[in-house]
Amino acid sequence: MSTSHQYEPQQHQHENQHQQRITVIGLGNLGRALAGAFLDAGYRVTVWNRSAAKAEPLVAKGARRAETVADAVAAGDLVIVCVLDYDAVRELLAPAADALAGRVLVNVTSGIPEQVRELAGWVSAQGASYLDGAVYAVPQTVGTPSAFVFYSGSSAAFDAHRERLELLGSALFTGPQPDTAAVYDTAVLSGMYGMFAGFFHAVALGGANGIKAADITAPLVRWLHEAAAALPGFADEIDSGDYTTETSNLDINAGGLRAILTATRAQGVPTDLLAPLQALFDEQITQGHGTQSLARTVESLRERGPLRERDGAAETAGS
Amino acid sequence: MSTSHQYEPQQHQHENQHQQRITVIGLGNLGRALAGAFLDAGYRVTVWNRSAAKAEPLVAKGARRAETVADAVAAGDLVIVCVLDYDAVRELLAPAADALAGRVLVNVTSGIPEQVRELAGWVSAQGASYLDGAVYAVPQTVGTPSAFVFYSGSSAAFDAHRERLELLGSALFTGPQPDTAAVYDTAVLSGMYGMFAGFFHAVALGGANGIKAADITAPLVRWLHEAAAALPGFADEIDSGDYTTETSNLDINAGGLRAILTATRAQGVPTDLLAPLQALFDEQITQGHGTQSLARTVESLRERGPLRERDGAAETAGS
Ligand SMILES: NC(=O)c1ccc[n+]([C@@H]2O[C@H](COP(=O)([O-])OP(=O)(O)OC[C@H]3O[C@@H](n4cnc5c(N)ncnc54)[C@H](OP(=O)(O)O)[C@@H]3O)[C@@H](O)[C@H]2O)c1
Ligand SMILES: NC(=O)c1ccc[n+]([C@@H]2O[C@H](COP(=O)([O-])OP(=O)(O)OC[C@H]3O[C@@H](n4cnc5c(N)ncnc54)[C@H](OP(=O)(O)O)[C@@H]3O)[C@@H](O)[C@H]2O)c1
Repeated sequence: MSTSHQYEPQQHQHENQHQQRITVIGLGNLGRALAGAFLDAGYRVTVWNRSAAKAEPLVAKGARRAETVADAVAAGDLVIVCVLDYDAVRELLAPAADALAGRVLVNVTSGIPEQVRELAGWVSAQGASYLDGAVYAVPQTVGTPSAFVFYSGSSAAFDAHRERLELLGSALFTGPQPDTAAVYDTAVLSGMYGMFAGFFHAVALGGANGIKAADITAPLVRWLHEAAAALPGFADEIDSGDYTTETSNLDINAGGLRAILTATRAQGVPTDLLAPLQALFDEQITQGHGTQSLARTVESLRERGPLRERDGAAETAGS
Repeated sequence: MSTSHQYEPQQHQHENQHQQRITVIGLGNLGRALAGAFLDAGYRVTVWNRSAAKAEPLVAKGARRAETVADAVAAGDLVIVCVLDYDAVRELLAPAADALAGRVLVNVTSGIPEQVRELAGWVSAQGASYLDGAVYAVPQTVGTPSAFVFYSGSSAAFDAHRERLELLGSALFTGPQPDTAAVYDTAVLSGMYGMFAGFFHAVALGGANGIKAADITAPLVRWLHEAAAALPGFADEIDSGDYTTETSNLDINAGGLRAILTATRAQGVPTDLLAPLQALFDEQITQGHGTQSLARTVESLRERGPLRERDGAAETAGS
């Protein structure tokens, strides 16, 4: 499959690529969708799952079921692992350690950076290339335009298998350190939970005024789409350290949020979810930054956190 | 301008409608944009501002400058007020009280429900119809498809002036009680601040790992647009009280958020902004609801807040 064979007709190259053998280990809801996407694209797929019955619909579509994890690993050039958690990954891979050498292992099981670093070290010690993946899709959206996956770890492995990985969703390489995708994952999900927290506050406030959740949510969603457009500008301010602003300064926003919290208390609704943001606004204002951008709030979180350098992080993920 | 004159040609009707006289009081950044939108649409516009010089660009476009607030009020069938805060509104309207009878006053100054109720009572006592407005636009987007405005108060006044109000942005009538638009406003803005809080957490976490804010923000924004699509489903669960779910239950989300907070602490980043959400998840789980939907979190805020009925709230705002 050398790309130097450029005289070969397209179709032939395409068939050759499909000689690439893909293994999917873990056939829960997500794993089955991943294996299905590769089968649909015409790849030779080997599967393994602890409860063997979950392989049946995939076998019916042409997948081969391996008897052991070691057989499954040995059958794949590209080996995807998608199980419940990192304990399960370690447990199932341990007896297959000898089969790993020379393979590319892509682990899309959700985990935090520390777990990823530990596993990546172990996998590398077995002579395999490690790629970590964080999947932004549900089983139904795998392979659709809304799906994307953060990857980090071996950039050679990413480059070699990118075409196949793109079948699952946009493949965003975040950097060569194995845990970078997990850092992106925790960061992006934390952002989502903040949005959810705001939603709960909004709906509780509406509800205390006799307004249905659906009636608050329709305009809220409309506004969130608009307001999200402000975030890249905030990010640029944060990256440049230049918080000069003509419009959305801390004084104005602290006043706005204070009014919201006052109205919230007046309705007897707890302010638990948003009071901490007010405290950060106030901290920045107390430090004399009231006329600077709202984005400066992040400094109140950073001041208390250490900074460490990360090589070549996220050159492509932001695109 | 009776709509029974249906034999009149369109054009003529249109000209007649423009005989409607509109007054805009308060020519700050937003007020100038509102007045400009009416002028652009061909209306006869009278303006007043405390610092008279701000009227000049509008006068150059055909507006008439009133010498006093009372003159400005008397010159308009529809009177828009857009100043800094409710103290300013009360202060400027007091000497014009006698001119108010029979007018429609639309106040789009930002305020909280309590302030609105008080002002609406006073305006009604002067014999005027009161509409409250909450503007979701910046001066540059007034009159564009992204702009929308919540209104509440006199539904007769809203119906009579809807066509003109639509010139500023989509006009969403939220209900006949004057403060309902302000409730929507505080609720929707609280949702936005939750999203901002999540953004600050995400960027601080990325930053502690040496990842630029812009690199975290690009995929975060992409994901927020996707994840916002889940909110109407959560709202339906909340309105129905049926929190049965196959997918996104409290146990799974509490586990996910706990992992994020663990990773956050491991980086030395404070968890102030998201720890309260974890506490609400845990409260619901402790009450035995772990296998129910994440949306049930709102019950932890509602249990502590009173519920009161609101007539006819939000029949059109959700559309
Ligand atoms: N579902 C999604 O939408 C989604 C999206 C993004 C990320 N993820 C992540 O993807 C991973 C899998 O999710 P899922 O939805 O597919 O989960 P799932 O439907 O609950 O499936 C869990 C899988 O893990 C296997 N497993 C659990 N413990 C095991 C062990 N000790 N040894 C071997 N296998 C074990 C299960 O095998 P059995 O069949 O034998 O029980 C099953 O295949 C999770 O980390 C999840 O966070 C999921
Ligand atoms: N700008 C936006 O994007 C936006 C969006 C939504 C809602 N709003 C709301 O709209 C309102 C106006 O915002 P803005 O951006 O136009 O504010 P702005 O540019 O700061 O203008 C403030 C206006 O209030 C007037 N004013 C202040 N105190 C006064 C007093 N005591 N008596 C009479 N007039 C007084 C000012 O008159 P002088 O010119 O004489 O100082 C000026 O016309 C605020 O409630 C704001 O929250 C604004």
